[in-house]
Amino acid sequence: MTPVKRAAIVAVGSELLTPSKLDTNSLHITEELNRLGIDVIAKAVVGDSRDELVHTIGAMLARVDLLILCGGLGPTDDDVTREAVAVTLQRPLAEDEAITARLRERFKARGFAMPMPETNRRQAMVPAGATVIENARGSAPGLWIDHDGKVVVLLPGPPRELKSMLAALVEGRLRARASGEPLVRRVVRIAGRIESDVDQVLQPIYREWAAADPPIAATILAQPGAIELHLSAHAASQDVVARALEDAVQRVMDAIGADVYSIDGRRLEAVVGDLLAAKGLRIGAAESCTGGLITSRLTDVPGSSRYVDQSVITYSNTAKTELLGVPEELLKEHGAVSEPVALAMADGIRVRARAHVGIGVTGIAGPTGGTPEKPVGMVVVAVTTATERRCRTFRFFGERELVKFQASQAALDMVRRLLS
Amino acid sequence: MTPVKRAAIVAVGSELLTPSKLDTNSLHITEELNRLGIDVIAKAVVGDSRDELVHTIGAMLARVDLLILCGGLGPTDDDVTREAVAVTLQRPLAEDEAITARLRERFKARGFAMPMPETNRRQAMVPAGATVIENARGSAPGLWIDHDGKVVVLLPGPPRELKSMLAALVEGRLRARASGEPLVRRVVRIAGRIESDVDQVLQPIYREWAAADPPIAATILAQPGAIELHLSAHAASQDVVARALEDAVQRVMDAIGADVYSIDGRRLEAVVGDLLAAKGLRIGAAESCTGGLITSRLTDVPGSSRYVDQSVITYSNTAKTELLGVPEELLKEHGAVSEPVALAMADGIRVRARAHVGIGVTGIAGPTGGTPEKPVGMVVVAVTTATERRCRTFRFFGERELVKFQASQAALDMVRRLLS
Repeated sequence: MTPVKRAAIVAVGSELLTPSKLDTNSLHITEELNRLGIDVIAKAVVGDSRDELVHTIGAMLARVDLLILCGGLGPTDDDVTREAVAVTLQRPLAEDEAITARLRERFKARGFAMPMPETNRRQAMVPAGATVIENARGSAPGLWIDHDGKVVVLLPGPPRELKSMLAALVEGRLRARASGEPLVRRVVRIAGRIESDVDQVLQPIYREWAAADPPIAATILAQPGAIELHLSAHAASQDVVARALEDAVQRVMDAIGADVYSIDGRRLEAVVGDLLAAKGLRIGAAESCTGGLITSRLTDVPGSSRYVDQSVITYSNTAKTELLGVPEELLKEHGAVSEPVALAMADGIRVRARAHVGIGVTGIAGPTGGTPEKPVGMVVVAVTTATERRCRTFRFFGERELVKFQASQAALDMVRRLLS
Repeated sequence: MTPVKRAAIVAVGSELLTPSKLDTNSLHITEELNRLGIDVIAKAVVGDSRDELVHTIGAMLARVDLLILCGGLGPTDDDVTREAVAVTLQRPLAEDEAITARLRERFKARGFAMPMPETNRRQAMVPAGATVIENARGSAPGLWIDHDGKVVVLLPGPPRELKSMLAALVEGRLRARASGEPLVRRVVRIAGRIESDVDQVLQPIYREWAAADPPIAATILAQPGAIELHLSAHAASQDVVARALEDAVQRVMDAIGADVYSIDGRRLEAVVGDLLAAKGLRIGAAESCTGGLITSRLTDVPGSSRYVDQSVITYSNTAKTELLGVPEELLKEHGAVSEPVALAMADGIRVRARAHVGIGVTGIAGPTGGTPEKPVGMVVVAVTTATERRCRTFRFFGERELVKFQASQAALDMVRRLLS
């Protein structure tokens, strides 16, 4: 038997082609397959159309060792997965009397007064040569078909039915067929760089990784206010992969330096929180254009009450003066969006909150309110302690919420660098 | 030219084949295409592999009039969409000097000290015969290719770039090519009800809608802190559909009453903001467990400086007393998570901020800190004005961030009801 190495997932259901519904089963399936060292190389969503499904199965099966179809196994005319598979693989459907008997049992056991509608016998139709996968949580049985050295698996769409059936396959038939090289992933998060810059720095390393044993795959993702580098590798031994990825992460850290803020999946607010907690420091923020987002992110982290005591949101000049003691002359002379004001805000909240670190953020989130000298997206961030005062002026692009998020990211990153 | 009736969407990116990332762009694209009467008959996700993408484009293009590819247009080796399209359609790539010039301009305008890396010129490579779609919000231009009576469109992956480019296509080239009956959707948003309750109230109305001309399809979606009812219909005349849906929305409002908070797509923070602005009122929030999220949501809305002046985040008891004047005895007697304290917080910020409406929120966001009397997820929300004081105790479920979000939703909804 061919070892299973490459898989594709097809989700079946017209509701998954509307603007309000996503196929999420494939995430869970991917995770389980990756654990067995099986790569998912493509996913597809098809509606309740036999023809489209036949076409998709045919096209995908040519490229993979394992095709998992989920959904479309119900008892109605809409449920076309069994038929489409039978047509594509040229394996005629026949009723499996054992399944029909179980369906009738199940129907009776659920206390329905009437006998099972004959239409439900559709669920007992099985392509020739298929093995039935029991469904303890629903009526639709799953199917496993060995076909020309490949495997086709049919699973029902409801997540709890699918999950328990998949778990059984992962422990049994799938594990027996998988290549046995588990895939391990690491994510490196970087702030203060742009994608193409990170990419250029890493180009020579990519080439080494591609030639390494095990080879390491890398993907760069530009996120708002951050660059993510996803590294993955597989090898026969989980330890070997883990070590190879740890070395790879170290290589990235050596090449990128202090701009790397997370190598273990933690978000920036958690990294900053851990630094504050480890040093026993408290932080307070004086937020103007971020409107509370920085403190909201800091307090998304469980246990953040150890280092967050109070913050203030001061939109107006009056609020900046009243709550933070920013001198009126400073506001008049430099304007609210200026480095002197941001620094005074940071100092103001630091003193008021008796915190060790103060953040002051003031800017123009947009879409209106910009001027040629102070355009929309201009944000000034100050971070101060009793002994150090840092301030930077940024220019962010994008809509209001994106400007706010990037400003919060910049502020948290400045705190991280100050504490590192 | 063939009218465009059937479309498929391909999302490109290896990160979309990991267990942690979903393609969400296709939802927005589907909505826009449906508005033009174009059906989406299949979706696919492919990694950063030229071969897989070539295969997928070939297989899908055979079935549709329009193929939209999103992602994979960045400047790195990972970005394979341009090449894969060029190979599949047999249209050689050539550098478009105008794009290169624009890329260099853009790079300079962003104030980088170094010149644009040469690798970025990949973004200027264009398959023969393609029309460039301008990207005002990013560096990757989109492409439109007429090919054998079909249309292939390439759009960048970042949602805000994709959305503005797609909007331009929908108004222009795509509308000119679309045929079929436009599908119109309306979303009714409801707070303070559970899904099955809304469903039961609407059951008789669903039956009428199914038999109506045009028939109206309804789907209920449970969101954190809200129920969404999605209504859709199609007919030859956009006016007929719009009128039928408007009637349907009215039926829902009659049946559900004041729990309906939005019938025009506005989010709750925008609904509250519009009420405040219309009445010329100012609002301030005293946030404990929400950590700034309420004010951040309020200030996500453009123009919110008209009604937000200041808010405070008071995690500790000391902060509640110092900043909001909550009496120490009240905190001692009732504890921080109590109705008297929430009310005192709301009054405190209202007076301090000279606002007309004050919000006070205190609760246990978790995952730790709960007691049998005050469990994790218990949140007290108070909303006060000079003449009215309202307070409610909620119990939310889910992780910390979900508790925070539901608490912010409850607070904003209480303000909405008070002002309506």
